[in-house]
Amino acid sequence: MEIDIRKRKIGLNFNEYGVAEIWLWAPLAAQVSILTEARELTLSLFDEGYGYWHLQTDQISKHDKYRFKITPLTGGEPLERADPASLFQKEGPSGPSTAFDVNAFSWTDADWKGVALNDLVIYELHTGTFTSNGDFDAIEAKLDYLIELGITAIEIMPVAQFSGSRNWGYDGVFPFAVQNTYGGPSSLQHLVNACHAKGLAVILDVVYNHVGPEGNYFSDFGEYFTDKYHTPWGKAINFDDAGCDAVRSFFIENALMWFRDFHIDALRLDAVHAIKDFSPAHILSEIKAHTDKLSEISGRPYQLIVELDLNDERYIRSQSEYGYGMDAQWVDEFHHALRVCTGQAREGYYSDFNGVSDLAKSYKDAYVYTGQYSPHRQRNFGMPLQQSSGAKFIVFSQNHDQVGNRMLGERSSNLVSFEMLKVMAGAVFCSPFLPLVFMGEEWAETNPFQFFVSHSDEELIEAVRKGRKGEFAAFHTYGETPDPQAEATFERSKLNWAKIGEPGHKTMLHYYQTLIALRKQNPVLANLDRENVQTESFPEKNCLLL
Amino acid sequence: MEIDIRKRKIGLNFNEYGVAEIWLWAPLAAQVSILTEARELTLSLFDEGYGYWHLQTDQISKHDKYRFKITPLTGGEPLERADPASLFQKEGPSGPSTAFDVNAFSWTDADWKGVALNDLVIYELHTGTFTSNGDFDAIEAKLDYLIELGITAIEIMPVAQFSGSRNWGYDGVFPFAVQNTYGGPSSLQHLVNACHAKGLAVILDVVYNHVGPEGNYFSDFGEYFTDKYHTPWGKAINFDDAGCDAVRSFFIENALMWFRDFHIDALRLDAVHAIKDFSPAHILSEIKAHTDKLSEISGRPYQLIVELDLNDERYIRSQSEYGYGMDAQWVDEFHHALRVCTGQAREGYYSDFNGVSDLAKSYKDAYVYTGQYSPHRQRNFGMPLQQSSGAKFIVFSQNHDQVGNRMLGERSSNLVSFEMLKVMAGAVFCSPFLPLVFMGEEWAETNPFQFFVSHSDEELIEAVRKGRKGEFAAFHTYGETPDPQAEATFERSKLNWAKIGEPGHKTMLHYYQTLIALRKQNPVLANLDRENVQTESFPEKNCLLL
Repeated sequence: MEIDIRKRKIGLNFNEYGVAEIWLWAPLAAQVSILTEARELTLSLFDEGYGYWHLQTDQISKHDKYRFKITPLTGGEPLERADPASLFQKEGPSGPSTAFDVNAFSWTDADWKGVALNDLVIYELHTGTFTSNGDFDAIEAKLDYLIELGITAIEIMPVAQFSGSRNWGYDGVFPFAVQNTYGGPSSLQHLVNACHAKGLAVILDVVYNHVGPEGNYFSDFGEYFTDKYHTPWGKAINFDDAGCDAVRSFFIENALMWFRDFHIDALRLDAVHAIKDFSPAHILSEIKAHTDKLSEISGRPYQLIVELDLNDERYIRSQSEYGYGMDAQWVDEFHHALRVCTGQAREGYYSDFNGVSDLAKSYKDAYVYTGQYSPHRQRNFGMPLQQSSGAKFIVFSQNHDQVGNRMLGERSSNLVSFEMLKVMAGAVFCSPFLPLVFMGEEWAETNPFQFFVSHSDEELIEAVRKGRKGEFAAFHTYGETPDPQAEATFERSKLNWAKIGEPGHKTMLHYYQTLIALRKQNPVLANLDRENVQTESFPEKNCLLL
Repeated sequence: MEIDIRKRKIGLNFNEYGVAEIWLWAPLAAQVSILTEARELTLSLFDEGYGYWHLQTDQISKHDKYRFKITPLTGGEPLERADPASLFQKEGPSGPSTAFDVNAFSWTDADWKGVALNDLVIYELHTGTFTSNGDFDAIEAKLDYLIELGITAIEIMPVAQFSGSRNWGYDGVFPFAVQNTYGGPSSLQHLVNACHAKGLAVILDVVYNHVGPEGNYFSDFGEYFTDKYHTPWGKAINFDDAGCDAVRSFFIENALMWFRDFHIDALRLDAVHAIKDFSPAHILSEIKAHTDKLSEISGRPYQLIVELDLNDERYIRSQSEYGYGMDAQWVDEFHHALRVCTGQAREGYYSDFNGVSDLAKSYKDAYVYTGQYSPHRQRNFGMPLQQSSGAKFIVFSQNHDQVGNRMLGERSSNLVSFEMLKVMAGAVFCSPFLPLVFMGEEWAETNPFQFFVSHSDEELIEAVRKGRKGEFAAFHTYGETPDPQAEATFERSKLNWAKIGEPGHKTMLHYYQTLIALRKQNPVLANLDRENVQTESFPEKNCLLL
């Protein structure tokens, strides 16, 4: 199966005549058929070589529910499985897939030109806890608020279908399916269209480094995983071992789909350091090449932003210079240095940061570690940047991870003074980098953002509980680890919009609005030339002049 | 411990005043002392931070035998261990280390300028089986023969200390110690000096991707290995995980030592695709940078040649273009294509090669697989080369692996006709690449080169036997797998020099001499401009015009 830049091919799609065309990669199957529920049909797919199975049929209609029946090559009973490239799991991961026409939506954003990388002011949000309804429609109702705040792009935490209704999103098991409890795929399309109508760009967080634990049946189909590498979340996805071509295509198709069929403006690729790929062309580089081709066809710019725990310029260097060509990367080290300046204890990964002089370094060099010894990592770490402009880096004073990875999920507003919150925001918005705000930060939300799941397997639930407790065994001698599975943990992590009108919170919101407006108006603040930033740090006074 | 380009620092070394200076990396030790046998001394080493222990003492003399006594951080009995950076294990891996002064040798090769990469005609030999004596001295006695043959460099299979007296060399457990049964370090220095006196360069095969199974006590000292990656030979060496700096330094020191203290001209780095390193600066790139610095100081050129099972130009691209800067790589694909042309059955990795048209491709492109689907690897494989000249590639019609990895270790002389042997040699020597001959090939030696070991642990011996049998379960339905542990397997793998005078063998030797001389004299044959090679292939006639 060759990738077609112009349309989605993997999974079940409808062509211009409404005929269903199905492509499935299942090299471990001796036979494959598709089963529909309503019409009680069973249609055989044809073996097209290289592990691909194919069928074109007019017997499947939009909204039909279907599963694949795969007879294992190794013998044994046939398995009934949802489509790994399903677009919609109306009943969740364990239910059938729903035949969805990704091209049916009536877009009205033909004039949308996108937001230039340099102009990004990003607002990270989690669909389930951003509003009390916890779905895409409810986000739409807040767009005017966001415009007024001054942000130019929302960044939506992962929406790939996960088990249950409560999850940060990094346990997704259907990378192409939009979470049913958020409203499903058409609802996401509606939200993006509405954003564009109001001049907002949409960044989507996607996970290409692992697949969630519950409802993960990939290994019944083919070699999606490899034993060559380990990741903190289990087996690594197979990007360079036998059978990897189809896996690579699967994720390239995924990236193309969000841009082309959901009009997403940028992807935020989760933890790309955990994508292990020794191929001559790294998978990120291939995604970039395909994205560029799509951009040529559509005339729209698309951006690839990576979360990267390595100070390694090769990810963001251009492809002509043998880089992977990513447009920007998150700089956690700016955050860590900033937090230590503002009172964070030097424990865990914060132990590597000493305060204002490190923050001063980050203002100029983006990376704090550029080759020197890191005690936390127990090795020399990082490299100096050769050339990348400030627009290649996303900075923040908090984000979902930095808040939610604390045992109690406390936001900065519960950890530092009101005035210090302003300093932290100022530090971000005066930087020569692209600023990111985590939902609620702008009004000093005091509700926590805790770690929550809603699995159904009791063993898994217990393992997650234990893992979460174990993570904090060394720190946080006070308090109890919130139960990740409890609905209350999810509920207490929701934003409380009523606070906007309250004193203090109202002041902070006004402060953010003013700060963002100032950055936009003042050429000095919006200048992303990091190398001409001048800093002077006074460690004894914990003071930094910019 | 900082690396000093000018002298070896790791391990036990003698300074200009004859005082012993000891550096040991043992982060897993609570205490370290050095024990000498003869003088019954115990001296404590000082903790210098970052896991390093150090001592300067005049109480240890050249040729003293010593061990380290390390008290584990985790408690438990102190361990007595030989020096991981030992230069000489006179009694083998289980014995003490011998204090050796690597600078004591009286070199007479001050005028030696090295052999330019373009002029390399390489002769690969295994010290133990090249001669009946099986040591360095016996190689020296054959140098005039090699000069007469026309070769310009000998390539010595690994000499790092392994267990027992019979081994290909890839089971080395003391990367700095020269095999005792070959004559030890001073004998190797003597050989190199003699080679240089006669105008021969010396290439040494070194293994930086794994450590052998018997006598491997590295894990008692520090995190030499990582669980992040798997290699076919067990745990990967830790080049990018916590604690990796010292491991990186250890191997950089190793490379520098061979060049600086043994006057080796080039290293052949074994199976570098199994070196897993996601650091911003790949360990190969760091070795290159250090080697270049040494070259500046010594005024001699040094070459780094890699065995690489990936068609990936980044290894041989210059560092200014973000490559690893290796000088040349082995091209197994040229060999595979050539062998299929000359009658090799298309089984195992040969199944990917179709004969003359693949060989024709390799003549121009070096790599046969430049991105197309490889059935054997089950993925699209390789990339087209952008720029590398033919001098970046080493080709051969056989080598130790291609002979010895056959169940019976048959050389080509046992597999194809006499005339075909000439064609194979012609194919190599007419190529725009650097030719390599495997010892004995030049007189059509008929003795096999089989896989042999001489371990002492019965379980390990049995495991190697089983592994070897299992490897050939699918092929080779005739014959018995030779017992790798049997001395007879080693003995029958030795060259039979008496054949040189016999008809047939004598003719072949003369043919090789003439062919090599022709290549040296004729500018067309020595032209390494691969892109201007013109080929025409006639698959139906199994014929290739060059």
